[in-house]
Parts: sequence; structure tokens; C-alpha cells
Amino acid sequence: MKQALGEALSRAQIIVISGGLGPTGDDVTKEAVSELLERELILNQEIFEKIHRRLSHRIPHEAIVKQARIPSPGEILNNPVGSAPGIILKKDSKDIILLPGVPEELRAMVPQILSYLQHKAFSQNITKSRVLKVWGLGESEVDERISHFMSQANPSVALLAKKDGVHVRITAKFPHAEVDQRIREVEAGLREELGDYVFGTDEEILEDVVGELLKERGVAVSLAESCSGGLISHRLTNVSGISECYICGVVSYSNEAKTDILKVPSELVKDKGAVSEEVALEMARGVRSISGADVALGVTGIAGPAGGTTQKPVGLVFIALSSGRGEICQKNIFSGNRKRIKWKTSQEALNLLRLYLLNKLTLK
Amino acid sequence: MKQALGEALSRAQIIVISGGLGPTGDDVTKEAVSELLERELILNQEIFEKIHRRLSHRIPHEAIVKQARIPSPGEILNNPVGSAPGIILKKDSKDIILLPGVPEELRAMVPQILSYLQHKAFSQNITKSRVLKVWGLGESEVDERISHFMSQANPSVALLAKKDGVHVRITAKFPHAEVDQRIREVEAGLREELGDYVFGTDEEILEDVVGELLKERGVAVSLAESCSGGLISHRLTNVSGISECYICGVVSYSNEAKTDILKVPSELVKDKGAVSEEVALEMARGVRSISGADVALGVTGIAGPAGGTTQKPVGLVFIALSSGRGEICQKNIFSGNRKRIKWKTSQEALNLLRLYLLNKLTLK
Repeated sequence: MKQALGEALSRAQIIVISGGLGPTGDDVTKEAVSELLERELILNQEIFEKIHRRLSHRIPHEAIVKQARIPSPGEILNNPVGSAPGIILKKDSKDIILLPGVPEELRAMVPQILSYLQHKAFSQNITKSRVLKVWGLGESEVDERISHFMSQANPSVALLAKKDGVHVRITAKFPHAEVDQRIREVEAGLREELGDYVFGTDEEILEDVVGELLKERGVAVSLAESCSGGLISHRLTNVSGISECYICGVVSYSNEAKTDILKVPSELVKDKGAVSEEVALEMARGVRSISGADVALGVTGIAGPAGGTTQKPVGLVFIALSSGRGEICQKNIFSGNRKRIKWKTSQEALNLLRLYLLNKLTLK
Repeated sequence: MKQALGEALSRAQIIVISGGLGPTGDDVTKEAVSELLERELILNQEIFEKIHRRLSHRIPHEAIVKQARIPSPGEILNNPVGSAPGIILKKDSKDIILLPGVPEELRAMVPQILSYLQHKAFSQNITKSRVLKVWGLGESEVDERISHFMSQANPSVALLAKKDGVHVRITAKFPHAEVDQRIREVEAGLREELGDYVFGTDEEILEDVVGELLKERGVAVSLAESCSGGLISHRLTNVSGISECYICGVVSYSNEAKTDILKVPSELVKDKGAVSEEVALEMARGVRSISGADVALGVTGIAGPAGGTTQKPVGLVFIALSSGRGEICQKNIFSGNRKRIKWKTSQEALNLLRLYLLNKLTLK
């Protein structure tokens, strides 16, 4: 570690190290950095007490002492999620930034680090970017619609196929006073081409967009899921405060659960099959009726790998929406493995709910 | 790209590049590599037809042609998930491996690449590793139990705190004939110290372990989830073939869903609160009764960030199990944000089910 760090110091202005700040014997980052910089590890009383309060019932005293020893001089970065604090060490004009390795903790500290690095940056032109997230169009379809934007150099526009859709990234390098306006102009042009296919921007995810719309409009929702297996409920309940709007979900995996809990007529399941437009609609109606929701989704399909037929292949998914304003049922054929089909189903279902909340669906 | 690739060729034996094989104008990996190696891009008829069958309704002809052009000579790697194939180009004794950038596609091709690289490797000692995954003990607690293994150099033992528990990684470097046996010996010693806290090995995840146990033993399960919001159902239904064993889930987010669907007595919810041992047990009993499952879980808690009190803080979660053999209810206080609390709840609940299926629980 000391050798790698020495080499990094000879080449870079800022060095970020994650991991090795924990309580166990193989956590040696602070020790290696301190030896290299010839600094002392000194017990920080405040950190010690914070960790002691949290963990004294779980980890031995020496492990707490180890975590609370900080290279001196060094600046402490608050870790809002875990016990090991981050540390910034300055050496000449260089910075060595130590961060915890547990992904949740590292992620929680990124905003602090970014704002620190932003203050350090001193170039006149700054680079900013903005991502428009698209669902319902393939990468090539997006490319066709916005190809005239993609030949520009600054702001530049790039496409990236991601799990949650196609990301259209605008990147602009301009003086501080100008950069936001330049991005806004391109964004407006792209939105004209892409319309309602854009479901969010930057770090926004679809469940947050849908959750905010539900809360804003005071709409109560329930879900009946078969092939998606609870994933739509899971994603929606990731949204803080969603309990105002989300009443319940039923994961009706067996036919009996569909008929007994959701009151789908068993003859219908027999005649049309559990994976059919009719059953999807009855599932949506059923869960709306038992829960008293304003709007409900019913989802049934074949996630695979088994269960497909020529008539009803793996990936066939019906998504129905039932509301006081009317109904709709959508037929999809998704590609990919089981998890991917479940994911696409949840994304398509949440997007249908989004379009409903925006009054963009033609209901029957 | 050509400059970076040239530099890589001067330093490394094997170069792996992911991304840039797609149909859009900014996908230029094949073009850059071909120019550098002075190879021609030749349309591969078989690949062309495969992509054409899949995507001709969605992407224009030229885009398909672009994806089907392969640097020649070059070896094609099957992409089981998407349209762009991987490619191996040999240059002197070196390999340049081109892989798609979409994470699902890349992931699906890793086994092929690993076996290719394995064949290339020719050192006498080979390095192998094995991970034991632990749930229910913190990193320090694992460290204490197995510290005498962690001072060894070969096989070495290391700890890593991960989202799904503590990973104990055994790494051994020995001749081919010996290496598996060396790992097995250490694994046996570690298992003696860690017992039932080990829920899986290597790539195994908890839902797969639980799913296999359910299928093996022919046990039917149902779930009643409140604070976990469908995540337990989602994880369990990620297991292929689980429909044999998983009957249904009810995500009873509102009190009304608990009383109307799961038949939890409304006085009980009023007296004890929705987050209580009594309600968790009634939820488990309720979903077991309406679904006829052999075993059922009932989960209720406070995922936060709102809703906590001094008596019932954010992170308080009751997990109940009801079965023909008896019942149990477990009280947990989980730390972290909303998503983290949901995740830990799902992990703890699945682990409870695992211990039940292994007959390791004391039921009342």
C-alpha cells in the first residue's frame, strides 16, 4: 500500500482511497498512510464516543479505539451511515482522501467529497452535464429522433443504454455564468423530440417520479402482481412517505390467489389462461375493489425460463390499469432472462401509471 | 481510443474492452481497433441474420449492418442476451477482447471469458478462492471467532462487509492437484466456528438457498409484508421454478389491508399498534390461512425516515413465522436509511425461513 500510495503521490494532485478504515486486523489504510506521511495516529475523543455509543455492545474496546485513531494533522469527514469517519490529509498542495469501503457508507459521503473537490477546482470553464432518461424507445429510435443534436461538440449529446432506459447525456463546458443556460437550451430541444418518453432527469428514478405524482395529486394506488412477483410494490415502497398513497399489493402467484383473494372468476382463468388480457384486467379490478384504491394495476406474464409456449412465449406480459376514469390493458413481449423480464415489467408498469397520472393515456 | 489501445498493447498480454459495439454513431470500438490492427471490417452473414430477426422492426438496416461487421480475422463470442457479439482479436501472442457495454450483456458473457482466460493461463501454481457468506454476525464478531485463521498466509482468509452479510474469503495458491483440498480444509475449520451463520458460498445468494430448500422439501410458503413492501416476495420470485412453492404475498401497507385482507383484528392493531409482535404474528397466521401455505412470514416495522417514536424507533421490525410446527416472532432494530432497512428486513426474514427449513428454530 505504501508503495502504491508513494507512486500515486508522485503523479496525482488528489488521491482517493476507499476501504480499510474498519475495526479488523486487515484494515490498515490509516496505518499505511500515516507511516508514509510520517504522521501520528491520535485517538479522537469525539469519534471514539460516537462509535462507542453505537457499537460498544457489538465490538470490543480495542476495535473502537482502532477506528477512532486519526492521522494528525488530518481533517475529519462525517460518515452519516456507518462508524468509520472519512479523513482528508494534506501534503504540500496535494490531498489524500480516505473513505470507508462499505458501498452504502461510501455513497453517502460522495456529496461531501464532490463539494470539497468543487471548491478545489479553479478552471474558468466548468463542465456540467444533465441526463434525460427515456423509457419506451430503443437506443436506435432515440438516436434517429435526436441525431441532429449528436453531431454538436459543445454542448455534446451522448446516448447510453442503461437498465432503466436510454440515458441522453448533455455535457457542456462553458464559463460558470453561461453553462446552465446552454444546457437548458439543448434540453428544451431534446424534449421537443422525445416528449413524454422522458420520464426523469439526472439521479431521478421512475419510482420517485411516480411517487411524487401520486402524492401531489392525492391518488391512492393498489397493485396486483403475478410475474413481477412484488417488484413493483418494492420499488414504489422505496419512496419515502408513499404510505399516504399506496394501500396494498397482492402478489397472486398461484391461480388460487388470483381467484380467492382478487376474485378473478376461475372460469376466466380456465378459458383464457392466467396470462391473458382478461385476467390482467380482472386482477386490476379485483385489487382496486378490495382496497378502495383510485387506480390499480394488474400484471400477469411469463418471466421464464420455464412456462413458455409458442402461443404464449417467455416474456409475454399483460399490464392492465383500472381506474374510475376508465381502463387500459397493454400487451408486451420482453426479452432477456427472468430478472430482466421482471425488471422491464416493473418499469413498464410504473411508466403506465406515470402516463395515467399525467392524463396521457386513452382509457376505455 | 487508438492511442490508449496502442499503449495498452505495449504493456499488457490481454486487453479487455467493454462498450462501443452498438448500432449508434458513437459506438466506434470495432472501428478503432480495426484501424490500429489494420484489419478489415467484414459483414458476418450469420450475425446479420440473427440481429435482423431480433431487431429489424426496431432499428434501421444500416444499424444492423454496422453491428454485424466484424474485424477479420477475429473470433466471435456468443452474446446470449443482446445483439452485439463479443470478439477476440489475436495480435502476436496478445489478445484483445471486445465485449458489449450493457451490464446485463457483459455479465452474461463473463463465464465464456473466464474459461477462455483459464485456458490461456499456464502457471504451475493456480490461485483459487472461495467465499463463505455469513448473516447474523457483525464483521467484528466474525473476526473474533475466526481470528486464528486470519494470520495464515496461504491459504489466506479475509473479511469483507457486504450488503448481504459478511463475506469470508479463503484464497489459496497451490498446484492444481492440491488447491481444492487446501481450501476445503480451511472451509471446514471456518464452518466449525461459524455454524449456521453461514448461509451460502461464492455466488450463491440467500433467496436461491431458501428457494432450493423450499423446492427440495416441497414446502409451500406465503408472505405478509408491511415495511418490507414486497421486497421479500420480489427476491423469492427471482428464483426460477419457485411457483411450485410460493403461493402468494400480500403487501398490507395500510391498516385496512391488514384487517380486511389478512383478517388481523382491528382492535389488536388499535391496542398494540400496527408495528407489534402481536400484529406480525396475526399477519403471518392470516396469510397462511387464506393461502393454505405450510409456512408463512408476517413482517411489520418502521422503515422511516418518518413514523418513528421513542417507543418505536425507525428500524424497529418484527418478523413472525407461522407454521403447522409452531410459531416464532423476532424483534429487530436495524440501522440505516429506508432502503437499507428494507433490505436488512428481507435478508433477516429469508434467513429465518432458511433456519426454519433446516429445523434450527425453537418454535412455540
